[in-house]
Amino acid sequence: MKFRLLTPGPTPVPEETLLELAKPVIFHRTAEFRQILAEVLRDLQQVFYTQNPIIPLTASGTGGLEAALVNSVPPGKKAICLIAGKFGERWKNIAAAYGMEAVNLTVPYGNAVQPEQVEQALAAHPDAVAVCATLSETSTGIGHDIAAFGKIVAKTPALLIVDGVSGLGAMECRTDAWHIDICCTGSQKALMMPPGLAFVSVSAKAWKVIEQNQGARTFYFDLKKARKSLEQSDTPFTPAHTMIRAMRVSLKRILAEGIENVWARQAKYARAARAGFQALGLEIFPSQPNNALTVVKSPPGVDSGTILAKLEKNYGLKLANGQEPLKGQIFRLSHMGYVDQFDILAAIAGVELVLPEVGVKVEAGKGVAAAQRVFAAR
Amino acid sequence: MKFRLLTPGPTPVPEETLLELAKPVIFHRTAEFRQILAEVLRDLQQVFYTQNPIIPLTASGTGGLEAALVNSVPPGKKAICLIAGKFGERWKNIAAAYGMEAVNLTVPYGNAVQPEQVEQALAAHPDAVAVCATLSETSTGIGHDIAAFGKIVAKTPALLIVDGVSGLGAMECRTDAWHIDICCTGSQKALMMPPGLAFVSVSAKAWKVIEQNQGARTFYFDLKKARKSLEQSDTPFTPAHTMIRAMRVSLKRILAEGIENVWARQAKYARAARAGFQALGLEIFPSQPNNALTVVKSPPGVDSGTILAKLEKNYGLKLANGQEPLKGQIFRLSHMGYVDQFDILAAIAGVELVLPEVGVKVEAGKGVAAAQRVFAAR
Repeated sequence: MKFRLLTPGPTPVPEETLLELAKPVIFHRTAEFRQILAEVLRDLQQVFYTQNPIIPLTASGTGGLEAALVNSVPPGKKAICLIAGKFGERWKNIAAAYGMEAVNLTVPYGNAVQPEQVEQALAAHPDAVAVCATLSETSTGIGHDIAAFGKIVAKTPALLIVDGVSGLGAMECRTDAWHIDICCTGSQKALMMPPGLAFVSVSAKAWKVIEQNQGARTFYFDLKKARKSLEQSDTPFTPAHTMIRAMRVSLKRILAEGIENVWARQAKYARAARAGFQALGLEIFPSQPNNALTVVKSPPGVDSGTILAKLEKNYGLKLANGQEPLKGQIFRLSHMGYVDQFDILAAIAGVELVLPEVGVKVEAGKGVAAAQRVFAAR
Repeated sequence: MKFRLLTPGPTPVPEETLLELAKPVIFHRTAEFRQILAEVLRDLQQVFYTQNPIIPLTASGTGGLEAALVNSVPPGKKAICLIAGKFGERWKNIAAAYGMEAVNLTVPYGNAVQPEQVEQALAAHPDAVAVCATLSETSTGIGHDIAAFGKIVAKTPALLIVDGVSGLGAMECRTDAWHIDICCTGSQKALMMPPGLAFVSVSAKAWKVIEQNQGARTFYFDLKKARKSLEQSDTPFTPAHTMIRAMRVSLKRILAEGIENVWARQAKYARAARAGFQALGLEIFPSQPNNALTVVKSPPGVDSGTILAKLEKNYGLKLANGQEPLKGQIFRLSHMGYVDQFDILAAIAGVELVLPEVGVKVEAGKGVAAAQRVFAAR
């Protein structure tokens, strides 16, 4: 049986990138590797849509979030955390671990934080050092209007820090034009790489705040130290350099297509996936869905785990369950990264085949036809 | 030209491990991956010579050191840092970043901290929470007598924290018998993997200290959280799971040989390398050399960088220069990991060929013959 990885991270990795990972190991303190690192960071600037420097970290995406927060917000100071799911909660938890004051702006799972809520929170907390948002809330599939948040936050001294781990490279995200001060991502979602690398872009406004925050309690995630090393295209500690070398290969694929074209293609995939599942009578979970993944409510009375187990066991389709409170309630299909329209058809076709097995009547072919109509539209 | 990576990290990776890195990506929250992780951690216990749990971190080795220190030593409390080179200094720098009081026990580069110095420091600072040591000080090639340190520290409430990044898996290191409370290592040295993973073993004594240290300022490196996830063979954040899968392959190679046999083989390599270089009239830099790498003084008046550049350019041999104050003074040959006796002969042969080019007379064949006599001895 052919296996299809369609989870919202890790995602499939192109064959040429995997083969690059299998190449012999080189030394990292060389002109050769410095060139590779510099090239990867330049290419990433195109993906981030930024002219800000990008700092590479050998870590999960969460390491990038921690670096963003600990470098900019001193203990006791306020970070407004926009919480629309599990990854929004992570902001709050990181802030708590470092003794920051988290001002939580929470909406029910499946909803998105609205720009006017951000405006109100900033008005109520003019001393907030940062507003922490999530581009794609992977746990629920909602997307936030980061452009609107950016307009609001830019008028204040606060920094806009965005968790772009699962959205960046799939959804439109214009770091500079949208006034994102620190934008974080990980390698294993839309960037077509295995997990292990995080990247953080830092604006001039953010660097000023970071420079003033002298007592930041971190060593490994010290962004100032990393910036200094980058002057020589170097890193403070041995990086996961074979992954950075492989990352170059995936970035070439992304940039050959053009990041705006990727955004448009992902938008079409998301529309097609929604149309396909809705044609099967299923409901889309998020009120404001994003283009990186499609999150679908399980039919009434059916545990989504049952559907997912059958998809995997009988058809090799690996989609993801909900996390914690949403476990059993939803299933999540990723269309980020090295996924094409026919993979999405496969996922819809798989669900069409499985639904009757769990007692849900469907008209065979209706879901795939609806998706295909979106793909065929000009 | 054939390239030979003989630097003390990164080191060469076996072909079967590289090919494993090229295998398609799987999902990480599955029974399949949990089994892989559990197996890797069990195998690592054999390499660490410990029954303590081992915590995997997606990070450079330095991330492991930071995790060890920040979880166990509260701000304002004392950590005795044994400093015999650049990596000993890292302990001091991490302690400073977290507002701990570093009590520095420094010896000149090339020397080793002696057990009686540790005893005196603990007597002078009975309130020290930790003694931070380095198994193999990669910057100078010295090895520390961790067994002797362990006997001393075990009699006190302090924890013995050991940076085993470059030594563990090459030099004898008996974590439990030597009373090492937290032992840290990275993937890219003796463990035959690219960089990107760190591992930390934690003793019962250390867990008690960590549990009492409620206000540890860290999120990503929170060892208590990691331990909790490991109850389900899971990690708190998406790990570099394709690297963990590949790590399993390298560990099988190490355990097929047997870790005691690896130690003995590495000891022989180190003796052979020293004999070879000394036969060429060169001097070994460290007063107490270790078995993971051999560090050699450059001949008087010759910049080691000149020798190293010729070795690389003309013979494909990549050895390492000294770092910072030792740059130009020494060269470093690693024999850790996926390196065999003939690679060591190649390195000595290369140096034999290069020395006359920098004005140093040598008798061709004398170095390799001396090394070969060590290899041939029973």
